[in-house]
Amino acid sequence: MYKAINSKIKKSLADIFGKEHLFTEKNDLEAYAKDETPGAYHLPEAAVRPTQQKQVDELLKLANSEKFPVIPRGGGTGLSGGALAVHGGVVVSFELMNRIIDIDRDNRMAVIEPGVINGILQQAAEKTGLFYPVNPASMDSCTLAGNVAEATGGANTVRFGTTRNYVTGMKAVSGAGTRWSAGGKIFKNSTDQALIQLMCGSEGTLGIFTELTFRLVSKPLYSTWIIAPFRHIYDIPDAALKIFRENINPTMVELMDSATLSVCSKHLGKDVQYKNYHQLLIRFDSNDRIQIMDECEKVGKILQVMKSVDTLVADTRVQQDRIWEIRSNIHESIVAEAGSVCEEDVVVPAAAVRTLIERAYAISDKFGYPVMMFGHLGDGNMHLNFTKKNKDGSDLEEIENMRAEVFLTAVSLGGKISGEHGIGISKKLYFNKHVDPGYISFLKKIKREFDPSNILNPGKIID
Amino acid sequence: MYKAINSKIKKSLADIFGKEHLFTEKNDLEAYAKDETPGAYHLPEAAVRPTQQKQVDELLKLANSEKFPVIPRGGGTGLSGGALAVHGGVVVSFELMNRIIDIDRDNRMAVIEPGVINGILQQAAEKTGLFYPVNPASMDSCTLAGNVAEATGGANTVRFGTTRNYVTGMKAVSGAGTRWSAGGKIFKNSTDQALIQLMCGSEGTLGIFTELTFRLVSKPLYSTWIIAPFRHIYDIPDAALKIFRENINPTMVELMDSATLSVCSKHLGKDVQYKNYHQLLIRFDSNDRIQIMDECEKVGKILQVMKSVDTLVADTRVQQDRIWEIRSNIHESIVAEAGSVCEEDVVVPAAAVRTLIERAYAISDKFGYPVMMFGHLGDGNMHLNFTKKNKDGSDLEEIENMRAEVFLTAVSLGGKISGEHGIGISKKLYFNKHVDPGYISFLKKIKREFDPSNILNPGKIID
Repeated sequence: MYKAINSKIKKSLADIFGKEHLFTEKNDLEAYAKDETPGAYHLPEAAVRPTQQKQVDELLKLANSEKFPVIPRGGGTGLSGGALAVHGGVVVSFELMNRIIDIDRDNRMAVIEPGVINGILQQAAEKTGLFYPVNPASMDSCTLAGNVAEATGGANTVRFGTTRNYVTGMKAVSGAGTRWSAGGKIFKNSTDQALIQLMCGSEGTLGIFTELTFRLVSKPLYSTWIIAPFRHIYDIPDAALKIFRENINPTMVELMDSATLSVCSKHLGKDVQYKNYHQLLIRFDSNDRIQIMDECEKVGKILQVMKSVDTLVADTRVQQDRIWEIRSNIHESIVAEAGSVCEEDVVVPAAAVRTLIERAYAISDKFGYPVMMFGHLGDGNMHLNFTKKNKDGSDLEEIENMRAEVFLTAVSLGGKISGEHGIGISKKLYFNKHVDPGYISFLKKIKREFDPSNILNPGKIID
Repeated sequence: MYKAINSKIKKSLADIFGKEHLFTEKNDLEAYAKDETPGAYHLPEAAVRPTQQKQVDELLKLANSEKFPVIPRGGGTGLSGGALAVHGGVVVSFELMNRIIDIDRDNRMAVIEPGVINGILQQAAEKTGLFYPVNPASMDSCTLAGNVAEATGGANTVRFGTTRNYVTGMKAVSGAGTRWSAGGKIFKNSTDQALIQLMCGSEGTLGIFTELTFRLVSKPLYSTWIIAPFRHIYDIPDAALKIFRENINPTMVELMDSATLSVCSKHLGKDVQYKNYHQLLIRFDSNDRIQIMDECEKVGKILQVMKSVDTLVADTRVQQDRIWEIRSNIHESIVAEAGSVCEEDVVVPAAAVRTLIERAYAISDKFGYPVMMFGHLGDGNMHLNFTKKNKDGSDLEEIENMRAEVFLTAVSLGGKISGEHGIGISKKLYFNKHVDPGYISFLKKIKREFDPSNILNPGKIID
């Protein structure tokens, strides 16, 4: 179906990218064969590192004439296999196109090259008194183009929304090699915003981004985080509902169960306080310290009624960084200490999280894989990690049956199979099963229009 | 090209909708021949009022087999002619599908039929302690499906975003008659959100909505509005920039020039305070009264430095409703008192508004049409009304030349030809001129896939 990357193609790639930015040896390609998806490994035939837009155009021209897959890659932190070369071909890694072109203080906008790391933009924004609020746990290694491709959420979504709410400008190349651009340093745009939004979450199947513009917001002056340990996990979603019923407006509302906290404590070699309890993490941001104190007081009262064991307040950056260190290392800790057989990011209506947790425990019991739960309680977007030590690959079918139950559960509660990790290769089967057939038919038609030769990240989301 | 609505088609329409919901007489059709776009008038051949989804399916089936245009219509408040039957055909008015299906307090979501009026949803949300923040000036008559079709903004966008940031679920029918659905009562969705976003701002050219789900947010407990009159209009954008530089976070930042306020005063028969001054209107919302007071104090100091003549604070609903009455009647007042020859809603990067105002005055002088300016200063989305009393239609070419300069100005400042009114029929020419050709080529391809017979709202945005 696709042409192998033969010596003629390699020669052309070397001409476009220079020998120092073309990799064809297994040793070098290993770095591009995995992302963070448990068990996924696909060695590409070649990898290239563009330094300018023109090279991307030339690559796509070559790929269309020779018919080989092109797989765009950001930081390699994806959890659905979106950046993996499942049909071979050439991985395009944007690690060298990592320049912040402009932080525009007065327009509250940032223009960047695709390979800029999320956390680097956050720091640069902060230096000018601005704030980029989208903070996935992988923010210190994921790229902003990857964030757009996956329509990344993160912990601050409950108040600040996802990447979708921040990308306002785009330069892109379609699979067919057509260059297009839209938007700019404007948030309100009834002229050419629709295709920017269509590209969000397209997982590299419709186009490659070569420049992006992001809206920034005012940096709140004060931030306070609250940790509340609970004996009973079900009291946590109940407490969150009560908090929202009081019209309190937190930046994040996260849940971490005790199993998760225990493996984090072990893996990080730190004595995590109250690690034997399930924890609720709430963050407030405001320009007004008194407002935060008021909201904390209100929340404190609710937490007491809802039987939290304690209420720990973190209002310095040092304390908060310590909490974030744990929160952002959960995935790694579970993989290392417990062995993740699957890590699902289903999303349900916020009030259905309690039922989702009940069902997840029942599924865990039925199949015999301990489950560790954490995630974005306030958005209904939970991360369910089913685990097994010393995986030997003998139970793949059973794991798949278990995953099918997890997805069916989320959908039956009015939810979706992915809240923020995307479909990629790991949820394709379930996408086909649980997404409306009319929706899928249009997605396929759009794919054909943007990438008629099906060379752009083939095998992802749909076939 | 299209078939006329003959007696056979009328018979079929009567079978689908019932005779009481089919209109074919000129007298009845007049109500569907206009929206709020100055000078635009297109009498449809028929109009129908569906009461259920099934009728929409049947209409599209009929339209595809007989080849006649179908034009979906909300409240008829559009300012770009999006709901007008420029090629004849059948207008589908959703006035009877206006049921709020569900306000879900705990999930903070509303499910509605397409014809629900924006302001009705706002009231219903408020009764449960929630808030739907998207408030176009036409909120008391525009429908939510119309808002989605136009990706409507409004005055609160600067803090709360546009319709795009709130629609989370959709049932739709494509031009080809394919029914599809996506999303639900979930804000975070990496499964099937892209096409919902593609439909936002599609102006009825890709599909018809039959059910919509909107996210609601917490209702802030306190709201304070500030009005500051200025002698010199340029001091207003300068003041706004200073406010944003201080990381103050208002809900709206509006400008109304003295010409606008004078015609409002006359038309409404009210003595608008400081109507001979240009005015800056700022709104703050918070759960904390002290925070608002702090922000007002900070803003007050900036306004003083920036030479505002006075600072009026409105912190009761009655006072605020009085201000909103003026603000929301501007369009009508200008049309009635000054005669609008064109009303453009260009958007520029926020810091470029001062230059946009300078250029608008220069264009007004050059062509001899007095300009009245108001709009969403904080978003860079200004409404420029060029006026003439007793229009006689003799100067259409001159007006078009003037519009061309306005659009070129916005684009040259890094902006767009429409910030919130959409393209429709009135900006098609300029869309083609100022939007990236690659972008337009994909929009055309997408249109063909969703509506291969080109029966859905033909003649809008692109040909």
